[in-house]
Amino acid sequence: MSVLNSELQSLYDSILAKSKEFAVIQSSAAILHWDMETKMPPKGIELRSQQLAALELISHKILTNPQNSRILDAIEKNQNKSQLTKQQTRNMYLFKKAYDENTKLPESLVFEMAKQQTISIGTWKKAKTLKDYKIFKDDLKKTIELKTEAAEILMRVKGTKTPYDALLDSFESKMTAEKITKIFNVMKTGLIDILKKINSSEIKPDSSILKIKIPIEAQRKISLEAMEYLGYDTLSSQAGGRLDETEHPFTTGYYDDVRITTHYHEDKFSSSLYSVLHEGGHALYDQNLPKEYMYQPIGTAASYGIHESQSRLIENMIGRSPEFLGYMLPKLKTIVGKALKGKKLKDFVNAMNIVTPSKIRIEADEVTYGLHIIIRYEIEQMIFNDKIKVEELPEIWNQKYADYLGVKIENDSEGIMQDTHWASGLFGYFPSYALGNIYDGMFLKQIKRDIPHYKKELKLGNFNQIKRWLIDNIHSKANLYDPEDLVKIVTGENLTVKPFIDYLEHKFKKIYDF
Amino acid sequence: MSVLNSELQSLYDSILAKSKEFAVIQSSAAILHWDMETKMPPKGIELRSQQLAALELISHKILTNPQNSRILDAIEKNQNKSQLTKQQTRNMYLFKKAYDENTKLPESLVFEMAKQQTISIGTWKKAKTLKDYKIFKDDLKKTIELKTEAAEILMRVKGTKTPYDALLDSFESKMTAEKITKIFNVMKTGLIDILKKINSSEIKPDSSILKIKIPIEAQRKISLEAMEYLGYDTLSSQAGGRLDETEHPFTTGYYDDVRITTHYHEDKFSSSLYSVLHEGGHALYDQNLPKEYMYQPIGTAASYGIHESQSRLIENMIGRSPEFLGYMLPKLKTIVGKALKGKKLKDFVNAMNIVTPSKIRIEADEVTYGLHIIIRYEIEQMIFNDKIKVEELPEIWNQKYADYLGVKIENDSEGIMQDTHWASGLFGYFPSYALGNIYDGMFLKQIKRDIPHYKKELKLGNFNQIKRWLIDNIHSKANLYDPEDLVKIVTGENLTVKPFIDYLEHKFKKIYDF
Repeated sequence: MSVLNSELQSLYDSILAKSKEFAVIQSSAAILHWDMETKMPPKGIELRSQQLAALELISHKILTNPQNSRILDAIEKNQNKSQLTKQQTRNMYLFKKAYDENTKLPESLVFEMAKQQTISIGTWKKAKTLKDYKIFKDDLKKTIELKTEAAEILMRVKGTKTPYDALLDSFESKMTAEKITKIFNVMKTGLIDILKKINSSEIKPDSSILKIKIPIEAQRKISLEAMEYLGYDTLSSQAGGRLDETEHPFTTGYYDDVRITTHYHEDKFSSSLYSVLHEGGHALYDQNLPKEYMYQPIGTAASYGIHESQSRLIENMIGRSPEFLGYMLPKLKTIVGKALKGKKLKDFVNAMNIVTPSKIRIEADEVTYGLHIIIRYEIEQMIFNDKIKVEELPEIWNQKYADYLGVKIENDSEGIMQDTHWASGLFGYFPSYALGNIYDGMFLKQIKRDIPHYKKELKLGNFNQIKRWLIDNIHSKANLYDPEDLVKIVTGENLTVKPFIDYLEHKFKKIYDF
Repeated sequence: MSVLNSELQSLYDSILAKSKEFAVIQSSAAILHWDMETKMPPKGIELRSQQLAALELISHKILTNPQNSRILDAIEKNQNKSQLTKQQTRNMYLFKKAYDENTKLPESLVFEMAKQQTISIGTWKKAKTLKDYKIFKDDLKKTIELKTEAAEILMRVKGTKTPYDALLDSFESKMTAEKITKIFNVMKTGLIDILKKINSSEIKPDSSILKIKIPIEAQRKISLEAMEYLGYDTLSSQAGGRLDETEHPFTTGYYDDVRITTHYHEDKFSSSLYSVLHEGGHALYDQNLPKEYMYQPIGTAASYGIHESQSRLIENMIGRSPEFLGYMLPKLKTIVGKALKGKKLKDFVNAMNIVTPSKIRIEADEVTYGLHIIIRYEIEQMIFNDKIKVEELPEIWNQKYADYLGVKIENDSEGIMQDTHWASGLFGYFPSYALGNIYDGMFLKQIKRDIPHYKKELKLGNFNQIKRWLIDNIHSKANLYDPEDLVKIVTGENLTVKPFIDYLEHKFKKIYDF
């Protein structure tokens, strides 16, 4: 590291000190949140919400302290500014970005949005239970109005072309609707094309293997096998992770303490296996951010989409591959005993990769998943650009599901109201999920170049080389780059959906023989 | 609640708001601490220490904000001050006390003490492992010097007669060495007298039942039985508690989320049973503080000694009684099976109440426990009043163990270095443990008056009446009174050790037939 002149060094250090305070409080809140989902006695919920709100307020105050602006300005004007290293410059940029995003919205609007979020989630839950969109729609409308107001302010702060781009930028830095539309349109064509071929195929993989009853205790052992495969350590005296059980699996934590959860259903063992692999992928990313960036703005993931690429690469590209499953099947047979006796690898692989258009995003397979996202993205476009009315949303939703996926939505709970994101005001979030897949296509192509024999290694139970590749190429770069730039650095290519479609085409051609 | 004039109300409210912030952050830290002891992956320790230090600093800042002093002064000078209710007045008093204790020590001294604490604990651990007091003694000396400096300042702030009284006051408000010496001297005579009778008795209860091997799984079921007896709920959808496992059992939490831990050793099942009862007693206190005092200074326990009275009453007076054990034994037999087959209640009760002078405080029985505390208290007196040298402490310690308990200390790890308290700078803490027993003697005497048939109820497995008594008389009074005043209100008597000695005399006369 270069030696800065002492004034600049002291200004820089004071920003890093704030960043550390912020990271320490945020990581404390993450543990409280984890505890709430996994261990907290039910009666503790009211106290816990006070605790989380207090830590949120403290984080917010650390970030929005007016002093920060003065320090950032002084750094900006310091004549030795060019002495800052690339990392230091990025730290200042990210801190300023967070400062701006958190200070430029009027407090009254922030307060109004927080209040509306609680209300909307409440009515969404009720409406979803009662399958009655009418209960939800006025609060959705209000949420959209508030979010539009915020997006218009953020557009000016961030200098984006549209308000919706400002929302996208919060999840996927520098990403724009223009770029996403272009790439999603190509993806849509590709996915629908593959889906048609699959639907026309005479091969219908036997799904019965997915419903074999496997006792929870055996599934827990399977989880241990999966974690051992990944080298996600929850057992040793050097462990930096743990596995617990929650209804909805998630990953949380920071650096040396990153925890995952899964769920167990006796008649759906693959669900827990793939949850462990998916969350394990997220966890490896957070655990392998460079130690020297800890507590700094750059010591975070590059984006939501890049994070999702890490979980999906391991869940789908590794976890549903014949090589991984070939290594795992004998182990599963040993753990499970007679329930899996005589099952053939080919049938096992095919079952894990069945493609069936469905109504529910979180149950979707690798081919149809992207279509679920495209539908949401297209509707978000209509909401923010075309000011479409909330009354029209269910019909639009249902029509798109019929058109792209060929499924008939029977009620709004399995339709427009299935996800919590919009009730929570999280507009602009969905595209990141599909971008994760698209990044993965590009990453896998590069992995094939860099580790030509990677499949052989996977088959032998050796994940180390891919893990090392992920650490060197993705994790170690942390938040030094915006996602598109990172992808370009790693793969040498501009954002393209082709490798992802090629991967699917190649994979499902074998399974469905088209 | 009376209606205050608006200026006074607003001053009062702003103190309560600070108190709430403080309580919310402290209860967050309690969960992080619990997580550290029970669930945290080992690698997370460095991050966790940052998180705990950050929350400690935030709490400290909330409490020591100079604004607080101005508000407290304004309330003090407000002409309508007399409109404050008893509760409101106590809240102001407790907040001011905490403010003073935290602001009157120079920051350099606080910093020096914190630093020295970490160092002393380190050298204490090392010295204890190596059985070498020489390694520890210089750090103990330094700790005593710093603590003396602090105690001298606190003496002036609190207006106590001696520096040591200022330390006592932090654990047992308004308690003084003069009072403690008087009561401990009576207790010493009483305990040594009972101990002599027991030692001369020809009855030597058979301790083999305590060493019966009971599988951990069975012990876990015993814990559930014990918790069900107390009505400490860890299972229902309304549960406000949980049980986990740690080497050293403890209780932590706040109101609706109060958690206990125990430890399991196959050949020491009574250890886990009595840990659950002891910690369960602490937990019931914290859970049953009045809901309307939550987040207020009065919404805490009355003192360390009163807290200990709640755990010891349930552990010893209930848990080691023939009535409780008579109710439990058949249940234990069902859980454990043949290992307990044919065991008689009388032998079971006698085994659970064996009195054996030992070297280690935390393993002591009801009779000798007080002597362990008296030894520590007398030595603390010598340290702070007689400025005795650290070099002399081991000999004094060993001599007292020989004199009071008749045991020979072989090395300083089982002698002067057995507890962590002094290494941690916790001087003035030990007396609270024995005061808990003394309070219990008085409480039990009152329980006998208020619930004459309480033993019959215990035998039937009905703990409700005693629990209700504890809630009404102790828990619901929270921190409205200093401990001695609380005891007077509950029992009508001034602090006296006689009921405790009478209880022991009566109980052990039956067992040892003297």
